[in-house]
Amino acid sequence: MAEVVDVRARVLAANEEEAARLRKGFAASGALVLNLISSPGSGKTTLLEATVRAFGGRLRLAAIEGDIATERDADRLRALGIPAVQILTGGACHLDARQVRKVMDEAHFPGVDILFIENVGNLICPTSYDLGEDFKVALLSVAEGDDKPFKYPAIFARAEVTVVTKVDLLPHVSFDVAAVREQLASLNPAGEVVLTSARTGEGIPEWCALLEQRLAGKRRARA
Amino acid sequence: MAEVVDVRARVLAANEEEAARLRKGFAASGALVLNLISSPGSGKTTLLEATVRAFGGRLRLAAIEGDIATERDADRLRALGIPAVQILTGGACHLDARQVRKVMDEAHFPGVDILFIENVGNLICPTSYDLGEDFKVALLSVAEGDDKPFKYPAIFARAEVTVVTKVDLLPHVSFDVAAVREQLASLNPAGEVVLTSARTGEGIPEWCALLEQRLAGKRRARA
Repeated sequence: MAEVVDVRARVLAANEEEAARLRKGFAASGALVLNLISSPGSGKTTLLEATVRAFGGRLRLAAIEGDIATERDADRLRALGIPAVQILTGGACHLDARQVRKVMDEAHFPGVDILFIENVGNLICPTSYDLGEDFKVALLSVAEGDDKPFKYPAIFARAEVTVVTKVDLLPHVSFDVAAVREQLASLNPAGEVVLTSARTGEGIPEWCALLEQRLAGKRRARA
Repeated sequence: MAEVVDVRARVLAANEEEAARLRKGFAASGALVLNLISSPGSGKTTLLEATVRAFGGRLRLAAIEGDIATERDADRLRALGIPAVQILTGGACHLDARQVRKVMDEAHFPGVDILFIENVGNLICPTSYDLGEDFKVALLSVAEGDDKPFKYPAIFARAEVTVVTKVDLLPHVSFDVAAVREQLASLNPAGEVVLTSARTGEGIPEWCALLEQRLAGKRRARA
């Protein structure tokens, strides 16, 4: 329906304007901002828990958690001592820039180095909504199967980083890492791929090093 | 935005009308029709493959496969000898009744006993779109974590059956089956729960028995 297409185009245009304002604010503050997108249960909150533990207070981290229902994810991160704000979308399948703006107006996260925005668990809807982030991170658990990048190409093409999670399960599932790397390279030749297991700690140092490099790069560009 | 709400209400109303027509057609044909909904990678297609193998030609099965991109899922089912039609949604995060109507007008699936409609991998968007099915089936892989019913309550409240998949992974993941049963009972006291592993075959006979009971029930009601 043309009407639906029109309304969607206007909603996206309004979102882009708000996202551009957010991005300016994030640039001024010097915080690196990530938009984490994956299926439900790929391990976004668990990766953030491992990240908080790995940095051990060396950087100031904060999180915005998007969910349909429950404060559970923000609770998990607050339990580790970082500021975390839950956005309940009331049924919507993605966060939008206006919701993030509202949190930033109220919470501020003063002096934060890295702000993680954990989107609603969904490989599709969040893809089109810019939240003013520096880059998108897609997560893919090895339990989800190795056909996913080509089945959900938009997010894997747009994410600058793909984190393959739960690699400790590789002996127990059918998941061809090389095949996934090929799909990702074809969708996004410049993209980076990190293999992680929050359970064993594998790949967490590489992931944290990537975050520190990106943060340093953003601050150099700003100086 | 009120405009968005209005358009969405009109889209859903049009979908309900089309779904009601589909349901009449399905009732006349005597086919049992399921709408399978889950996150990407919960194992919908793998469960259908196991189901086709378990029935071994004793019932006439057919499938409609919904995806953003690739014909992969329909190919997997056709390889097992059942008719399967792929719907590519062009980015949309759910199937709608109009798309199913179009397939039924063209494909017919003559004399089919059970029609499986595998929705786009998404725990949120497909929930509101009636496809004329007899009932919705939610799948939840044990690798996704045991907090999912309360985090995505709408689908688990509406699905008459929840299939917990990949239970062969239980020794390797943190997933409390009793906690999930409690959440499901609270969201949907009349719902049925089946634990399965397509890899070991666990629970597949129970799942197939449930399908046969439902099919017999539908045909008795019609007689």
